[in-house]
Order: sequence, then structure tokens, then C-alpha cells
Amino acid sequence: MKTLDLESAFEAVRHRAPLVHNITNYVTVNDCANALLAIGASPIMSDEPLDVVDITGICGALTINIGTLNIHTIEAMFTAGKRSAELRHPIVLDPVGAGASALRTKTAGDLLDELPIWVIRGNMSEAKALAGGAVTTRGVDVCPDDIVTEENLAESVRFVCELAAETGAIAAITGPIDIIADAKRAYAIRNGSEMQGRITGTGCMLSCMCSAYAVARPEDTLEAMVAAVTHMGLAGQIAESRLQQGEGTGSFRTYLIDALSAIDGALLASGARVEQVK
Amino acid sequence: MKTLDLESAFEAVRHRAPLVHNITNYVTVNDCANALLAIGASPIMSDEPLDVVDITGICGALTINIGTLNIHTIEAMFTAGKRSAELRHPIVLDPVGAGASALRTKTAGDLLDELPIWVIRGNMSEAKALAGGAVTTRGVDVCPDDIVTEENLAESVRFVCELAAETGAIAAITGPIDIIADAKRAYAIRNGSEMQGRITGTGCMLSCMCSAYAVARPEDTLEAMVAAVTHMGLAGQIAESRLQQGEGTGSFRTYLIDALSAIDGALLASGARVEQVK
Amino acid sequence: MKTLDLESAFEAVRHRAPLVHNITNYVTVNDCANALLAIGASPIMSDEPLDVVDITGICGALTINIGTLNIHTIEAMFTAGKRSAELRHPIVLDPVGAGASALRTKTAGDLLDELPIWVIRGNMSEAKALAGGAVTTRGVDVCPDDIVTEENLAESVRFVCELAAETGAIAAITGPIDIIADAKRAYAIRNGSEMQGRITGTGCMLSCMCSAYAVARPEDTLEAMVAAVTHMGLAGQIAESRLQQGEGTGSFRTYLIDALSAIDGALLASGARVEQVK
Repeated sequence: MKTLDLESAFEAVRHRAPLVHNITNYVTVNDCANALLAIGASPIMSDEPLDVVDITGICGALTINIGTLNIHTIEAMFTAGKRSAELRHPIVLDPVGAGASALRTKTAGDLLDELPIWVIRGNMSEAKALAGGAVTTRGVDVCPDDIVTEENLAESVRFVCELAAETGAIAAITGPIDIIADAKRAYAIRNGSEMQGRITGTGCMLSCMCSAYAVARPEDTLEAMVAAVTHMGLAGQIAESRLQQGEGTGSFRTYLIDALSAIDGALLASGARVEQVK
Repeated sequence: MKTLDLESAFEAVRHRAPLVHNITNYVTVNDCANALLAIGASPIMSDEPLDVVDITGICGALTINIGTLNIHTIEAMFTAGKRSAELRHPIVLDPVGAGASALRTKTAGDLLDELPIWVIRGNMSEAKALAGGAVTTRGVDVCPDDIVTEENLAESVRFVCELAAETGAIAAITGPIDIIADAKRAYAIRNGSEMQGRITGTGCMLSCMCSAYAVARPEDTLEAMVAAVTHMGLAGQIAESRLQQGEGTGSFRTYLIDALSAIDGALLASGARVEQVK
Repeated sequence: MKTLDLESAFEAVRHRAPLVHNITNYVTVNDCANALLAIGASPIMSDEPLDVVDITGICGALTINIGTLNIHTIEAMFTAGKRSAELRHPIVLDPVGAGASALRTKTAGDLLDELPIWVIRGNMSEAKALAGGAVTTRGVDVCPDDIVTEENLAESVRFVCELAAETGAIAAITGPIDIIADAKRAYAIRNGSEMQGRITGTGCMLSCMCSAYAVARPEDTLEAMVAAVTHMGLAGQIAESRLQQGEGTGSFRTYLIDALSAIDGALLASGARVEQVK
């Protein structure tokens, strides 16, 4: 078994301060920008087809999030993705709502087919939609039946590894238990807070963070993804622990960004609850 | 007079956790998503005409907010609205800036003409624009002359009931005193904080909450709207009461979302300052 | 040397409560709206070409921010700008990412050529891109080589005054040391916090605030811009001073908006670190 060096992955982000191009939804875009800044990276958002080739060219990685896709931005996703592929830059796909509409499912599938996606970051319902299975959907949230539990963990790991094998991407499937896998290796992460599901944007922020970690730590992308997911999960725990009587989801959101910016590499490594499960 | 059961309306939202499709402006969309999550509902945003039929189909209600309308999203509003009508789902219209531009006034009017709008949620200037009266405008804010006061309350109630009668919708016209009315019944609500007007998004958030309450409590939509408006007003009061020396509108916004998530049904019922005025 | 009356500029914003039309990016638009409300102004956002003529017509000033420009909103920028020019209203240009892509550089240049821009508010890398110099770029952030320091201050002031002379606009170029200049006069401002660069939106918010100050204080736009930039810088300082152990960029953002709303005219005048440098 490989020993993960999460601290070095963290330090690489701080050291390289990667520029990340994000084509993302307008619901959580501000949180995405602030999350990247919090961890020491720099965000750029651009979704005009005539603009994205240049922007991708100056960045180190590309995040594609289909949360509020439209025909204009879909074109930008493919255009930016092709440029990113030419440059051999990491591309992270967040297939928000795949399974919830034909357009979302098809767009996510086409992006996977036509672009060398490095990482798929989504919930289990979205992952099942990508795998072509019949899905029930709760919109952009995971279906209760799809949630990873200790009981279905082994089966879930098998599924995520298969998705990785089929797509050639690392699959970072997050929820109460996160599974991060390529075709051969898989990690389960048990960091995080139940509160993360009660605000919008934690998944979207994480996808952007995955881009930053991928470009900063190209030697081992799987390790880098474990570090990114752990960074978010640990931030969720810290944020939840700060909540006082009378505070709720508004304060939690502020504390989450605080924690993203306050965590250091040593804390990340010591607080990680990561288990290699394959 | 009918006794309102605000607590049951609140519990219905918690119990049913409705999915709400929102076609809304990009200024306050993040607050809208977080407000829905705070009260126990789930948001989905989609404004691509090719996507909205599917998304509306999996949701229980539709919010249409014209705050940053464009020709592409206007098409999505009508497409989603027609699908919602086929499904007999609640539609809440927030006519942001009606009266401030010809496009906004016409779009809001056309939406009212062509779709079975269940609820109009706006300020009094927007309501007057919808009613076809000559309006002076402060953009997306209410004109000082249009504000509901104790002095003009009876006249204002008459106007709001007429708007409801003409449009067939419940009118939820909010401000320092809120008036919630259909053609026959009207309620005045005196909850809320003056600070709500000093941040952006409280009206938009409330419109989305109205969708969640409408789908969760279909037996009496007027009662459900009183509950939704009271929920926001009470949250404003709680948020204001938490402000310390040196804090301002940034903290108020956080506390408002906190309070939306922290209020329970009993508190909603006991804190409501609701008077039946017709 | 002219004595600046920052307090009167501040009071003018409070007194006139200007309506500002903002065509701005969707990353920081919520912060922009809340910043304008915090200082006592009112925001309207509209970027549909068919809507902007009316909206510009009811407002007192126009902000054009190209942070997430697209072909549709570029058209709206020119349409709104021409209407604003007819009305002789202030126009503030925020050339986000000029130098980072051909489309951004060209759009910013065309806006400057075709519209009577009153104020350019950007960072030094964007200013250099507008001046046609060869630029290296960090995307939407300033390049390290371009940062204004005590060592290069005299040279930087010369450059900013030349930009102002060439464009006919006041140049408000912000960073660790801000330089606010027209062709003849220049001020250096040493307010602000290093934390402002660690969240998204401080520049965008400031550009919108510049619009509000420009319309409220037309007698001396340069003075008004110094007041706006000082208002933001002082808010940054206050926000930083409130940070406790364990807090980070999330809390800083909240405190910044708090401070924008809490500062009064006397505090603005007494806290200003403004030096006339030409």
C-alpha cells in the first residue's frame, strides 16, 4: 500500500498558487472563487466561447461544472476543454444534475467522450447517471438510495472503480463517505460534516479545489484528489465545531470558507480520516 | 374568520422537503438557494430552454424572477411555466423591476396573461406596475409614495385584493407592512426588520420560499403564503436582534440565513404578528 | 494644493442615495449589490440589450465591468454606455482581465474609444494593458512586477497620469498603494488591508462604489474617487482588525461589508491616508 503525503500536496498548492479557469454555474460561483483564493490558488471565470481559448491558455487547469449550463456555455466548455487537452492541462468535470435532465446527462456524457477528463467530481447519483444506469433523481442532490454507507461500501467502491476504468478518469464521488478511485486504487474518506449538505456550493467549491490540487501536484493525481477532498471535509468539521447556539447555515458557510483558508498542511495530514479500500 | 395554522404549514415544508425549480436573477441566486436549503427545501436552478422542461418535471413548484431577465431566459420562463401548468404545479412570479423598464413590465404582464400564476410576490411599486397604473419608480426598490403605512392600509388592502381578483393569483405584497390577499381575504403582517431593505435578496429569497410553502401546503395557499412571509419577517427580527456594535449589513445577511434555518414551527406560530384585515 | 473634503463626498452619497446601473460579472455581483446598499446607494443590474436603455435612463450612473463578458452583454455595455453618454451620466469602466485575453483587451479598448468613460478603476496590470504596453498577466490579478511600491511610486504616478491624459478619464488604479489621478493631479492612498486580495470582489465592489460617488459628487470627480477608494480601504482595515483566532477569509468578507455600512463621514475623513503626489 502506498503512503499518502497529503501535506506535500497541500504545500504544492500554496507554493505554486495555480491559476484555475472555471466554467461554472452562477449559483455558487462566488463561493468557488473564494474557495480557490482561500486555499492559495487564483480563480478566473470565463464562459464566452470567443474568450475561453485565451483564458485556458494562461491557466494551469480547467473546471467544467454544468450546474446552470446553456447552449452558449456548453460551446465554451468544449472549446476550452479542447484547448486544455492540447496543453495537457488537468480538466475536472462536475456533472451537476446529470440524471435530472436529458440535456445534463447528454452534455456530461459528451464531455467525457470528447475530452480527456482527468477527474470526475460528483455525488453518487450523478456518477450512476454517467455510468448509464437507470437513475432516480433528487435534482442536484443525491438520492437517498444512492448514499454510500458502511453497509454498501464494498459494492460502492467496486462501482466507482469501474466508472474510473470506463472513463479513464479519477472518480471523486463525495457524500457522507467519500470514495476517490482510479481503476486500481481506491480510498474512502470519512471527514466532513452533515451541515455541508445544508448549504449550496460545497461540491462546486470542491471541484474547483480539485483543479488546483491537480495542477499543483501532477506526480500523483489520485493522491492530490484525496488531499483536496480531505481539505474540504476537514473544513466542514472545523466549521461545524464553531457553531454556537442560535447560529445556523449562514454562519456555517462563513466558517467553512474560514476553515479552508486557515487549515495548514500539518493539520490536513493529522486530521485526515483516509482509508485505502482497494 | 379563519384561524391560520402557520405551524402546520411550516412542518409541511420540513416534512415534504420540496424540490423547487427557480429561474431567477444572478444577483441573489446564491441567497435563494441557501434560503431554500435553510428552510428544509431543495433548490434547482436552470434557465436554458432546452433544459427546463425536464427540470420542471422533477420539481414540485416553479419560481420565476425577472430580476436579470434576457431574451434567452424569458423563453425559458414561458417554456417552464407551460410545463408547470400542465402538471398543475404552483408558480410564483417575482416581477422584479416591473415599472422600471418596458421589457420588465411587458414580460411580467405576459407571464400573468399566459401562465396560471399562483402567487405574485413583489413590492407595492411592482404591484402597481402590474395593475397598469402610472408608476414612478426607484428601480428595483419600492417608491416612497407606494409604501404601505397604517394610514393607507385600508386603501392598500383594497388595491391588493383587486390585483388578486384581476389576476386570479394570490398577491403577496411585502414591505414594512406586508399584505397577503386573494380576492376575498387579506392579511396584514407586521413582522420584519428595517434592515431587510439594506441588503439585496430578501424579496427574491422570499419568493423562492413561497414556492416551497405552496407545494408543501396545497390545501390553503393563502395560509401557506402568510406562513412564508412570516417566516422571513421573523428571521429578519431575529437577525437584527443579534447585531452587535460594529456589525452591519454583512453580518445581518449571515444572521438572516441563520434565522431562516433555526426557526421552528412553534416559534413561527408564536412570533407571528398577523392580522386578518378582510 | 487642494484640500480634499472626503466627508462631504461621503455625505453626498448618503444624501442622494444614487441609483446605479451595473453591467457586471456574475462572480461578484451579489457583493456589488450589497456594497452599494451598504454605502447608502441602490443597485440595479441589467445586461439585456433590450432592457438597458430604460434602466440606464432611470439611474444616475453606469458601471461597466467586463469580468465575465459575453457577446450578448458586450452589446448591452455599448448600448447602455451610449444612452448614459446622451444623458451625460458618469460611466465607470472596470477592465477586469484586460491583458489576459484578446477579447477582454479589445472590448476594454473599444469601450474607451467609443464611450465618454469618466473613470477607469482597475489594477496596474489592467492599466498597462489599456495603455497598449506589453503585459504579462496573472489573469484577473495584478502581476507581481506591476505592483505599486514606495520605490516605483514616482514612475507609477507618471504612468497613471499619462493613462488619464490619453483616455480623458480619471484613473483609479488600486493595489497596496492606490493611485488616483487625472492628467494634472494625482493622489496616493495608503489605506487598505492585504486581506482584500484574498477574497474575490473587492475591486468590483469598489468600481460600483465609484459610480455612486461620481453621481453624488459631480463637482469634483477626482475628489469623489479618492473618497470612494478610501472608503473601501478603510473598510478593509477595520475588517482585518476584527479578525479573531480561527477566523479567515470568510469572516473577512462579512466584516468588510459590515465596515462599508458602518463607516461614517467623520471616520472616513480622519482615517484617510491620502497624499497628493502631483
